Amino acid sequence: MATLRLTLEYDGTGFEGWQAQPAGRRTVQGVLEAALRSVSGRPVRAVGAGRTDAGVHAEGQVASLELSTRLGPETLLRAIDARLPLDLAVRELAPAPPGFHARRDATAKLYRYRIWNGPVRSPLRARYALHVPRPLDAEAMRRAAALLRGRHDFASFQAAGSGVATTVRSLPRLELLGRSGGELALEVEGSGFLRHMVRNLVGTLLEVGRGRRDPEGMSALLAARDRRRAGPTAPAHGLTLVRVDYGKPRRGGDLADPPG
Amino acid sequence: MATLRLTLEYDGTGFEGWQAQPAGRRTVQGVLEAALRSVSGRPVRAVGAGRTDAGVHAEGQVASLELSTRLGPETLLRAIDARLPLDLAVRELAPAPPGFHARRDATAKLYRYRIWNGPVRSPLRARYALHVPRPLDAEAMRRAAALLRGRHDFASFQAAGSGVATTVRSLPRLELLGRSGGELALEVEGSGFLRHMVRNLVGTLLEVGRGRRDPEGMSALLAARDRRRAGPTAPAHGLTLVRVDYGKPRRGGDLADPPG
Repeated sequence: MATLRLTLEYDGTGFEGWQAQPAGRRTVQGVLEAALRSVSGRPVRAVGAGRTDAGVHAEGQVASLELSTRLGPETLLRAIDARLPLDLAVRELAPAPPGFHARRDATAKLYRYRIWNGPVRSPLRARYALHVPRPLDAEAMRRAAALLRGRHDFASFQAAGSGVATTVRSLPRLELLGRSGGELALEVEGSGFLRHMVRNLVGTLLEVGRGRRDPEGMSALLAARDRRRAGPTAPAHGLTLVRVDYGKPRRGGDLADPPG
Repeated sequence: MATLRLTLEYDGTGFEGWQAQPAGRRTVQGVLEAALRSVSGRPVRAVGAGRTDAGVHAEGQVASLELSTRLGPETLLRAIDARLPLDLAVRELAPAPPGFHARRDATAKLYRYRIWNGPVRSPLRARYALHVPRPLDAEAMRRAAALLRGRHDFASFQAAGSGVATTVRSLPRLELLGRSGGELALEVEGSGFLRHMVRNLVGTLLEVGRGRRDPEGMSALLAARDRRRAGPTAPAHGLTLVRVDYGKPRRGGDLADPPG
């Protein structure tokens, strides 16, 4: 059995997220595992670095798996890719050290949330960006983002009903790119994320951009540790998992500093 | 009756081109005219600046039309937009001088053809860019493009069976952006285009990029005035009509120099 690392790109529009369970839904994991089974002749379990939600896209999702094959990496990549639909592709395939686990071993993930801040809809951006017609105050959003950057307890930004040991996370990067009235993108990098955390951060920053929330209120919002105090969850289709890093692992699986 | 100028954006994937005739197909003109009729209560004929083919996208197609309405431009734009599907939007709507004709009065059009030159498919680019897996020689393509730029007889690049008075056209801009092995885009600007001309130019330049055709052969290819000597028509989905200009009109409807 060889341990492999796959880098995946997908258009999330037609998938009900990463996770294959419960069965009967079209998921990235399910479609990938069907292709792997067709190539290897046996069931294969793929572990994804990020369990992306329904509608979320990926430029660089990473999956780990064990496969028994005599094919070389290049031939194997072609064989798997030939069995995948148009909206899912294997960008890279490489041998990994035994025991490599795409989720546990990840040291950082980068997400991007795209916003089309124009007065009218943009059909060419509609699949991959949230449309916000009224001009957003990008400077206020940047001030709020600066207060959320770094290591904090993000309990206020966690989906209700999640049960995790700690809600402290580090976001070494939380940056708004672009300009009001045009294309905006929020890039968020961290070692780990709570459920819906990026979309809840975006929903809150959008309220700041609309002038409905004071950017200076972010510190109090973090301190409240109350999901009801933050903004709504932004729609899934604006979100893309851009990259997963496997640099030096930090103790506790959490990054205190920006990754090298 | 007011004469109006509409700027349209559409994802061409779900349209069988601009032209509504023959009836019974889903076309941009047909879908737009249905929305206009619903708003005004009467049949409205829309003239498009460029008759884009099936699958071709537009960021800035322009349409002219006559409409009887008491609504102001902003309200009218909202009323039309509310009746359009997700893949077609009105970006701008403005009063135009009586007799304004989107096609006849256009002084320049800019098209962009996108190429994803990476070894594996890219699901997030698949709708809007042609995938070319093997590395293209972008420098050879640039040398060939330089020989095609300017005023020439483009008969070799006209779809077979077209009957137009003259096949002389001016391309003040014909530029390849990007790098080999990454994202490439060919931008082509001219006052008028022959049928399939941009896609035939792209198909020919791709043969140059693949090393199957000498870039220095472009002058002989133009001189031959023979469609069979040029490359194949590149697929429609890589092409976008970016912009239509209405600057000073030139005699003969053809630009000899770059637009102001």
